[in-house]
Amino acid sequence: MIYSQSELLALVEQAIVSNRWKREPEGLYAPIEYVLSLGGKRVRPSLVLMACNLFTDDLTEALKAGLAIEVFHNFTLLHDDIMDNADTRRGYATVHKRWNNNTAILSGDAMLIEAYKLLATVKSERFSEILKVFTTTADEVCKGQQYDMEFEKRNDVGLDEYMEMIRLKTAVLLACSLKIGALIGGASEADANTLYNCGINMGLSFQLRDDYLDAFGDPKVFGKNIGGDILCGKKCYLLLSALELAKGDTKSELDSLLALDNATHRDKKINGVIDIYRKLDVDKRCEAQVSAYLLKAITCLDKLDVPAERLEPLKTLIKAMSNRKK
Amino acid sequence: MIYSQSELLALVEQAIVSNRWKREPEGLYAPIEYVLSLGGKRVRPSLVLMACNLFTDDLTEALKAGLAIEVFHNFTLLHDDIMDNADTRRGYATVHKRWNNNTAILSGDAMLIEAYKLLATVKSERFSEILKVFTTTADEVCKGQQYDMEFEKRNDVGLDEYMEMIRLKTAVLLACSLKIGALIGGASEADANTLYNCGINMGLSFQLRDDYLDAFGDPKVFGKNIGGDILCGKKCYLLLSALELAKGDTKSELDSLLALDNATHRDKKINGVIDIYRKLDVDKRCEAQVSAYLLKAITCLDKLDVPAERLEPLKTLIKAMSNRKK
Repeated sequence: MIYSQSELLALVEQAIVSNRWKREPEGLYAPIEYVLSLGGKRVRPSLVLMACNLFTDDLTEALKAGLAIEVFHNFTLLHDDIMDNADTRRGYATVHKRWNNNTAILSGDAMLIEAYKLLATVKSERFSEILKVFTTTADEVCKGQQYDMEFEKRNDVGLDEYMEMIRLKTAVLLACSLKIGALIGGASEADANTLYNCGINMGLSFQLRDDYLDAFGDPKVFGKNIGGDILCGKKCYLLLSALELAKGDTKSELDSLLALDNATHRDKKINGVIDIYRKLDVDKRCEAQVSAYLLKAITCLDKLDVPAERLEPLKTLIKAMSNRKK
Repeated sequence: MIYSQSELLALVEQAIVSNRWKREPEGLYAPIEYVLSLGGKRVRPSLVLMACNLFTDDLTEALKAGLAIEVFHNFTLLHDDIMDNADTRRGYATVHKRWNNNTAILSGDAMLIEAYKLLATVKSERFSEILKVFTTTADEVCKGQQYDMEFEKRNDVGLDEYMEMIRLKTAVLLACSLKIGALIGGASEADANTLYNCGINMGLSFQLRDDYLDAFGDPKVFGKNIGGDILCGKKCYLLLSALELAKGDTKSELDSLLALDNATHRDKKINGVIDIYRKLDVDKRCEAQVSAYLLKAITCLDKLDVPAERLEPLKTLIKAMSNRKK
């Protein structure tokens, strides 16, 4: 049986609810229940289940691993939101704003531990490999967040460094989700690694699409204000490409625009930088990269020793992630 | 071969150094190297090794688990110091003071993950049980910290609640250390659980001794100022006992003293509260509890299926912990 994306999503939501977060002390667990109830696309557990479903119809153990990874992902959001001083997440107050920093720190810690507790319930002959992939990935995600924070204070970040940062911060967890699902499902070592590579390429495509939408998304669909990255000077793919490509007057103009005050020159700054992006074809370059990594991800799937019809839900999800409008 | 405490300590220090913390990105790992180099008594890894050494002379795997638990313990210190706004730890600036809060959060996260990475290297047939004990304990330590923070804001904390809080915050990790050492060493399930109980009693004795020393330690030996807990209104064993026992005039006097301003009435407050502790025999009660839990811990050891001479290093350590002057 090949599960559809909506069937898998229903399994994931059910698993989150039935893990019972109403535990004592309430001060520790209420924020965990809160952040997990805010939704999100549940991409990572869906990937675990889809990868497992490539090889078997029994998703029982994969569901536990998927839940572990979703809890881990939400732990990173809790702590990242403190570090980034973010007020909202998915349209709701972040945990450190609704409660306080100490609560967000400690409830986050409890979530990381809970992720391991959930993972430890997975029954698999390959448990030690699953544990190793998960832990290596968790370590890499921390490194990615560290680089991301360091980049904010640097003015000499190269595109290569940026791609490595988003690989660590975003792509490895998607890759880990696919690989763990495959290992649980009984994939060969080669297929599990191919799915890992698929996840890396998917993650890079996904993040570059994120960068693209921040400047070139449709304001009616995007859900956030256009130009947020420009205002906070985020070293995203678009800005780093523009800084590498701009010469002479264009370079001077870009530097002047970036130095403008957000409060008094908000629209001038956003529109001016976007104009330069277009002039330098940075938008087209970014779209080309999104497509190139998407193609690499899909190509990985075609290497798998799996009947073509089994691949459809995963291909659909990956394409949707790279083509999303919000 | 029965290892002495100093031999085990040398093994632990060697293991910490050789785990190479000089990794990239430096901003993430330098704080980890810093906090682990500040020393401390290394009680938890010593307990892992001693428990293992009760049953076998091969401490190779136990050393890995001991290092994992020491890294975990230092992770809790990093995050607790943020939450408690502590400026110093072991006479040095805390990580969040020397660097900043974000660094202490993220480097702490990386340490928790590193603890799991180290634990995952332990080769043992009983690995799944070891992982379960570790994760359950880690979860309990978070709960203990949550209760500790909640107690600060409450005025109705009972002694029973306090004992449960220190069981979670302090005792379970000592118990976990002994149990994991025993499991790696090949102990029977019964002996491993007896050692767990030994660790709980040892931990309660240890923490109550801590409470006692804060008010009744020898200022020349103690290393910290006497009366720190009194000044910050910490709901320790002494204060909670006094609040339960004081009646009439003594109760009114205690309440007045506790309400005194620290800046202007520091000595009057500390000396006054200590006088009441003596008047109510709270000091003797506390000492009696320290001894009672120590006796329980030692009694556990005598139940083990282990030659008496093997027990000596552990007995010596446990007694030293309960009789320490600083």
